[in-house]
Amino acid sequence: MNLKMVFNTVGRMIFLEAALLVLPLIVALIYGEGSIAISYLITILIALAVGSVLKFAVKPKSQVIYAKEGFAIVALVWLFISLIGTVPFVISKEIPNFIDAFFETVSGFTTTGASIIDDLSVLSHANLFWRSFTHWMGGMGVLVFVMAFMPNIADRSIHIMRAEMPGPVVGKLVPKVKDTAKILYLIYIALTALEAILLMCGGMTVFESLVHAFGTAGTGGFGIRADSIGSYSPYIQWVIASFMLLFGINFNLYYLILVRRIKSVLKSTELWCYVAIVIFASAIIASNVFSIYNNFPDTIRNSVFQVAAIITTTGFSTVDFNTWPELSKGILFVLMFIGGCAGSTAGGLKLSRAILLFKQSLREFKRLLHPRSVNAVRMEGKPVDESTLSSVSTYFGLYMICILSVFLLLSFEPFGLETNFSAAVSCFNNVGPGFGKVGPFDGYSIYSGFSKIVLSVAMLLGRLEIYPLLLVFNPATWSKNK
Amino acid sequence: MNLKMVFNTVGRMIFLEAALLVLPLIVALIYGEGSIAISYLITILIALAVGSVLKFAVKPKSQVIYAKEGFAIVALVWLFISLIGTVPFVISKEIPNFIDAFFETVSGFTTTGASIIDDLSVLSHANLFWRSFTHWMGGMGVLVFVMAFMPNIADRSIHIMRAEMPGPVVGKLVPKVKDTAKILYLIYIALTALEAILLMCGGMTVFESLVHAFGTAGTGGFGIRADSIGSYSPYIQWVIASFMLLFGINFNLYYLILVRRIKSVLKSTELWCYVAIVIFASAIIASNVFSIYNNFPDTIRNSVFQVAAIITTTGFSTVDFNTWPELSKGILFVLMFIGGCAGSTAGGLKLSRAILLFKQSLREFKRLLHPRSVNAVRMEGKPVDESTLSSVSTYFGLYMICILSVFLLLSFEPFGLETNFSAAVSCFNNVGPGFGKVGPFDGYSIYSGFSKIVLSVAMLLGRLEIYPLLLVFNPATWSKNK
Repeated sequence: MNLKMVFNTVGRMIFLEAALLVLPLIVALIYGEGSIAISYLITILIALAVGSVLKFAVKPKSQVIYAKEGFAIVALVWLFISLIGTVPFVISKEIPNFIDAFFETVSGFTTTGASIIDDLSVLSHANLFWRSFTHWMGGMGVLVFVMAFMPNIADRSIHIMRAEMPGPVVGKLVPKVKDTAKILYLIYIALTALEAILLMCGGMTVFESLVHAFGTAGTGGFGIRADSIGSYSPYIQWVIASFMLLFGINFNLYYLILVRRIKSVLKSTELWCYVAIVIFASAIIASNVFSIYNNFPDTIRNSVFQVAAIITTTGFSTVDFNTWPELSKGILFVLMFIGGCAGSTAGGLKLSRAILLFKQSLREFKRLLHPRSVNAVRMEGKPVDESTLSSVSTYFGLYMICILSVFLLLSFEPFGLETNFSAAVSCFNNVGPGFGKVGPFDGYSIYSGFSKIVLSVAMLLGRLEIYPLLLVFNPATWSKNK
Repeated sequence: MNLKMVFNTVGRMIFLEAALLVLPLIVALIYGEGSIAISYLITILIALAVGSVLKFAVKPKSQVIYAKEGFAIVALVWLFISLIGTVPFVISKEIPNFIDAFFETVSGFTTTGASIIDDLSVLSHANLFWRSFTHWMGGMGVLVFVMAFMPNIADRSIHIMRAEMPGPVVGKLVPKVKDTAKILYLIYIALTALEAILLMCGGMTVFESLVHAFGTAGTGGFGIRADSIGSYSPYIQWVIASFMLLFGINFNLYYLILVRRIKSVLKSTELWCYVAIVIFASAIIASNVFSIYNNFPDTIRNSVFQVAAIITTTGFSTVDFNTWPELSKGILFVLMFIGGCAGSTAGGLKLSRAILLFKQSLREFKRLLHPRSVNAVRMEGKPVDESTLSSVSTYFGLYMICILSVFLLLSFEPFGLETNFSAAVSCFNNVGPGFGKVGPFDGYSIYSGFSKIVLSVAMLLGRLEIYPLLLVFNPATWSKNK
């Protein structure tokens, strides 16, 4: 493995983080949070120091990156930026415990939105801003950002993009990876800005609108109030619900709209399934919870909002769905597994994987009946090649193995199957809230340090789709013989 | 499809059931349960009538059976024998409600052992016997029985065997399917007899020992006391625990022992994994529950017993594991998914599938790192062909889709995620007890009629490994065009 190139790239990414840490520093200065500003200044210096060591001390002889290097870079970058992102929370003493702060930061970058903070009012504006900004960076991928806007990126970086972008297949929209990344990021920025403006129109302050737009865009879910979005106006709730759904759609479709290939957009199986599931799930939940709200607008809004929040794995909430009847909770639980569309910022298994799994099952059924038949599984009108199909079903196996392992490790806690299992499912799928004691208006502060580390790893495994982290924790990767 | 041959075979199977119903009739006569004896007599007459209609009214022109017919035969036979098996419970008025009786019978044949009977003392000896005998018939497969001991079976019946026997690959031990079936059944009968004798040595009556041997052999789990095996002696508990584990092993290995190919047995990856999981899980649970029992023998016995009961999906119990700490419950929950070895009477996903899923994940990982590498997944020293691998991972996808669907349909019940989800997992994997309100000393009587039907279908789907039932409920199967 080209270790020097790996560390060099990690160093460059830490420089980027140092630059981005200037934003919460500015927020601290605006709000007159002097001691917090100093925390961010110190963090920036630490980041520059660590980044310099990695970037300048190791000079790569070759710029070549293969799949292995791509995985290693992505895994290490995510670990490093999470560790450095933890620093301001700790030294500002607003989250004094390191493990707590690490959990919160990982939850931010992985766009999970699970929080260990019971009382959000202890956080300064700068820290609230940083917390939500990590969602925004993590949503589209920190490395993809660099690929889009920095010079000096080898075209081999498709391996980085594949390792960081979620979903079964990552392709190029345009011949150059760099241009693809740029297009995706520009769409991301434009949609985020549009949401922030619409939120300001609803009476939110600039600060509030930015924080919530970041949380929505990254499908993260960190809010600034104890009841998440519950005490905002219906207009705000509808804006956020709509944008959650928009950010859960494959960004390639937005590109197709921009180049006026609307027909291709309308042919997307994944999009139609997504729309159908959202409508269907919202309708069932609405009829199930109508007796609670006793009026049509509230029922529809709360149903659609919670469905959008869970299927896109954002995890904002307007009500405590833990108090809903079992059927509604059951639907939300199943949606946690599915997640949003591939190529969106949403987490979860991804809808296209779920569709491919289902289609493969049907094909297997046909093959059992007619052993000599040859049927290709088709998606978006095109046959899907066998290696993709095998990757998808294999990934699903590994995905369930991971979720059950996380659940087992959480079983040292006395909170019962509902809480522990839903915490494992929710964190691994980067949703945020679960059921039982980790509901939308509760937090993860009940868990021990050990469990918080387990859940942090689960969030990273889920966000990076397992393999990159496996590589880093595999001793063979670091042995000299290889 | 050769429908006539399908119905003809179903008819023959119902004749077999009529013959086997003579056994509980004899039990009723021995214990002087006159009215129950009449119930069984009536049931036998009904079975003969239905069987005659199907067998003699439809004369097949051709004896040919393909995969499709194999699936249809298996699915219909299981539905019919379950329906007829329900009759004695209903007309003896010991389980007057038809849905309850159907649930209990399906739970018997599918070797689940989930019960809707709150007070077992209402059941006569004959009904207790029949209930447990359905476990024994269902364990190895009713059709495999016929293949083994009846003349007139076309050699095409490998398709029936494949459709009825659990596990990813069903092969022939010896060139003729019929002989393979006979060998398997003789091993099954011998082990059951041995267990019954050992139980009698422990002081059980003939009746008790037969009922428990049937329940163990089929990995079913219907007992005759409210606390399952809890009030029997440690000797009895150890005998049952050992035989549960023995019946969870691939029967092919016993054949290999018989023909003195011990080396091949010792090479079995699945066997070693099975042994390792049992030891490992028991050890962790033992250390976790030691403080409850405060002595070594009880701790070890209860730990091993519960692990054996769950991994083999039998579902007997010596203690209410619902009162155990979360870690022990968590381990048992994960074991429910895995199940026993392929080619055993155990349910669940099957250990060999779990191993193949895990090995496939590792290969996928290697393939991501070295896209051009070609690695075969190996099992028992031999490379596994790609179509088997694809079947296994695809089956797992469908398996999870089914479990989540069953869970969603159960969500109309107000019992919470722990109860509903574990009920879905437990019934689909043919385990029996779950967590929460469906624990080992509780029952499924809390569920509504609708949910009982859902769970009955789940048990059948799990036992027949989904595809045969899909075929029967697929309208295209019955359309004239096909």
